[in-house]
Amino acid sequence: MSENVAEILTSGVKLTDAALERLLPGADTLPHSIHRAMRHSTFAGGKRLRPILVIESARMVAHGKLPEGIADLGSVIEMLHTYSLIHDDLPALDNDDLRRGQPTCHVAFGEAMAILAGDALQTLAYQTLSQLPGDPARVIEVIREISFATGTGVGGKLPPGMIGGQVMDIEAEGQKPTAELVEAIHRAKTGALITISIVAGGIHAGATAAQTAHLRSFGEKAGLAFQIVDDVLDVTQSSEELGKTAGKDTASDKATWPAVFGIEASVEQAASLIADAFAELDSFGASAEPLKSIARYLVERKH
Amino acid sequence: MSENVAEILTSGVKLTDAALERLLPGADTLPHSIHRAMRHSTFAGGKRLRPILVIESARMVAHGKLPEGIADLGSVIEMLHTYSLIHDDLPALDNDDLRRGQPTCHVAFGEAMAILAGDALQTLAYQTLSQLPGDPARVIEVIREISFATGTGVGGKLPPGMIGGQVMDIEAEGQKPTAELVEAIHRAKTGALITISIVAGGIHAGATAAQTAHLRSFGEKAGLAFQIVDDVLDVTQSSEELGKTAGKDTASDKATWPAVFGIEASVEQAASLIADAFAELDSFGASAEPLKSIARYLVERKH
Repeated sequence: MSENVAEILTSGVKLTDAALERLLPGADTLPHSIHRAMRHSTFAGGKRLRPILVIESARMVAHGKLPEGIADLGSVIEMLHTYSLIHDDLPALDNDDLRRGQPTCHVAFGEAMAILAGDALQTLAYQTLSQLPGDPARVIEVIREISFATGTGVGGKLPPGMIGGQVMDIEAEGQKPTAELVEAIHRAKTGALITISIVAGGIHAGATAAQTAHLRSFGEKAGLAFQIVDDVLDVTQSSEELGKTAGKDTASDKATWPAVFGIEASVEQAASLIADAFAELDSFGASAEPLKSIARYLVERKH
Repeated sequence: MSENVAEILTSGVKLTDAALERLLPGADTLPHSIHRAMRHSTFAGGKRLRPILVIESARMVAHGKLPEGIADLGSVIEMLHTYSLIHDDLPALDNDDLRRGQPTCHVAFGEAMAILAGDALQTLAYQTLSQLPGDPARVIEVIREISFATGTGVGGKLPPGMIGGQVMDIEAEGQKPTAELVEAIHRAKTGALITISIVAGGIHAGATAAQTAHLRSFGEKAGLAFQIVDDVLDVTQSSEELGKTAGKDTASDKATWPAVFGIEASVEQAASLIADAFAELDSFGASAEPLKSIARYLVERKH
């Protein structure tokens, strides 16, 4: 990791954690149990990659400045990510007892509280969005973009978002994964939230419609590349290196990129997607370097 | 039921159902399973009381006119109500197999899909809010009010909303219910969504800050009265009359109004709360009659 990347990551984590600490009700706020459950999962060692993308996208659009409220916007994405993980981990879904080496929310607080803590993190995300500073029309645009990116897809007019991807993944279990299916699941289940991190950060920083279109295209390509790298690491790394149960995706016959294309081709495709993604940032010139270096780090990481 | 009330209910149900039909993805929209699960619970015979309160509150503020988008706003409240019912019914929470005589969402579609369908209805509520017509600052105010009314309470500064009430109810199980506890649970678990129906309808229709304060106070008092009547009916009516398992609250030692005050005093308190609530609407003059007649019907109903 270059010094530059390490600095961006460290400062992004610090900004995000301070905002989350302020935005989440305290562990001693009534009713206690749910606030403790929400904090347990929110402060369980997440890398804050999505908030960092929000922050760096905004910084790029604003020529190096950090727009007011940007850490709150990053925290919103982290709340939505955390709520989806809490619900994904439930016995009725992936039935995971551990995440990042810690007991999952339902193991620590019971299933009822885990369901409600996930619900409440989604609600808190919109509470936070509704209090963002800035032009109200732009705040509503951010709310609209985020709600669509995390939904199921509406009326067939939009690609499914995060929940839609989760459902496609469940529906696909036991089927032989095809390239088309795996790509659709990845784009929805994980890609949509990565993309919206970059798009929302840009819109909040004042991006023009043309800039937003480039950011969206960058996010879609980079988001798919990140997920391909995740899939590859799941196959090639040991559990110890990954910090979670390796090979779980393969073992449970989940739709993954290497299962369809093999490892070597997957690595090549991730590299090619990132090159295409970088081309989308040409018009931002040198301001794009920090965001590019983070993206490069994410596809080149080994764990 | 007077002819007038019957007309208001019928037209409110019609407006709401048409909006929900348009706003929910079709049963044949991919991914199928979740959209079918969302529709199953949304169109399971709900009385649409909350959307009707949204509509009638707006009509009162707008002197008899229906503001553009009001049925969508009513549908948002119904989506949030439905999501909370789907999650409440889950085995880890109330473990209910039937609601309004139909299989609950997890019985019909499995637990995983019920969890995700609840999540997606909450998301769809905010998608819909982000597309409401009108002044953006006022739309954000509505989003802020609704998100706080359905949350857990933040930083101790605000009373808990819907999820907070659900948690308080869970935490109270096995404890002897006190008057203070039962009131706090009712105000949060069911009162907050009733109140916000009336407040949001009014804000969307252009209510002044003073009018909004009266609407909030009306909603808090009337909402508590409705819940007391619900509690009383649960004790006094047979299962057949209620269309659900009667006496369930008592049997499971839940915090209810008659358990603390007895039936007779509960009935008197509901009547007294409604009288106080009506006084909050004095400044609206004759325009308040439809909303009052709905509130009167709700506390005088026998099932």
